[in-house]
Amino acid sequence: MADTPREIEALIEILARLPGLGPRSARRAVLHLLRRRGALMAPLAQAMQIVAETARDCLTCGNIATSDTCAICASPQRATGEICVVEDVADLWAMERAGVFRGRYHVLGGTLSALDAVGPEDLGIPRLLSRVRDEGIKEVILALNATVEGQTTAHYIADALRGTGAAVTTLAQGVPIGGELDYLDDGTISAALRSRRSF
Amino acid sequence: MADTPREIEALIEILARLPGLGPRSARRAVLHLLRRRGALMAPLAQAMQIVAETARDCLTCGNIATSDTCAICASPQRATGEICVVEDVADLWAMERAGVFRGRYHVLGGTLSALDAVGPEDLGIPRLLSRVRDEGIKEVILALNATVEGQTTAHYIADALRGTGAAVTTLAQGVPIGGELDYLDDGTISAALRSRRSF
Repeated sequence: MADTPREIEALIEILARLPGLGPRSARRAVLHLLRRRGALMAPLAQAMQIVAETARDCLTCGNIATSDTCAICASPQRATGEICVVEDVADLWAMERAGVFRGRYHVLGGTLSALDAVGPEDLGIPRLLSRVRDEGIKEVILALNATVEGQTTAHYIADALRGTGAAVTTLAQGVPIGGELDYLDDGTISAALRSRRSF
Repeated sequence: MADTPREIEALIEILARLPGLGPRSARRAVLHLLRRRGALMAPLAQAMQIVAETARDCLTCGNIATSDTCAICASPQRATGEICVVEDVADLWAMERAGVFRGRYHVLGGTLSALDAVGPEDLGIPRLLSRVRDEGIKEVILALNATVEGQTTAHYIADALRGTGAAVTTLAQGVPIGGELDYLDDGTISAALRSRRSF
């Protein structure tokens, strides 16, 4: 826009690239920040600077960390012997929010894709295999997304793990808690029916 | 969330305070930034830092600027003699997007409110009066929001401007371009009918 300071336009443009924000909401967010320059904008800029400088991938599991080993891999409270394989750090966070899994993770960073030339190396699958052998892992839980790509990758990993002696499991499929049958897709209902259990 | 680096949690918390973002979308935005640390997060942090350090209010009109006088007040291309009064910088930006007004602005920064103890001084109304006198303003366009607060403030300013010799005008009210009568409120339809013009 003409006559808006160039620095502010640049900021709006970068913010608009965040998911969930477009040019319009980025503009609104920047105005909000401009009105609270001292109380909000400066601390936000600083917090972002610090994270941009310190964040890195955990060398063991691929989780986001501020040192070479993430808090989960470093924690003596986490169960050894169990690895949960997830596609993405977002999935790891979702698992952690559920607060049920107490083992460690392996973050693939994507799914296998011939089209995008994403192979096992890119997802750290060889590294997962060495971890399973070296850490004496008894169970590998495949918590990949219930998409075609996720399940293809899960099958590949399950095959690769054959012979390591580790049990390979996957998340149960069925009706979500609070879910209404009327709003569920056919695939979920079929899966829930096939895996029905005694009441 | 346990086991997420403290710096990242701090960043999510601050981002979640932006309008249009909540804790969930702030988390998603931060993950997006973390995946593009070099290409997106570092430039964003820097752009924000620069704006936080350089942004200030234009001493003349109250617009956001990077020097004591904003680009609009400093521009020789803008018509002198006309001031458009807006509540907020967001409104100024909206006017500029429309690209029709070529004069200068006066940003109030709010509306009069006895409840919140916002008086004429807080909105820079005395400063507006001196500008009208000193700059030889011929027309003051009141582009305040069509809310009770906006219109109360508009009436106050119109009264205060009486005696300066400047014409006081306000934006036309009516059916928005592309608007469908069926979806318009009664007040807008009444206003549009009262201000009807020959076709």
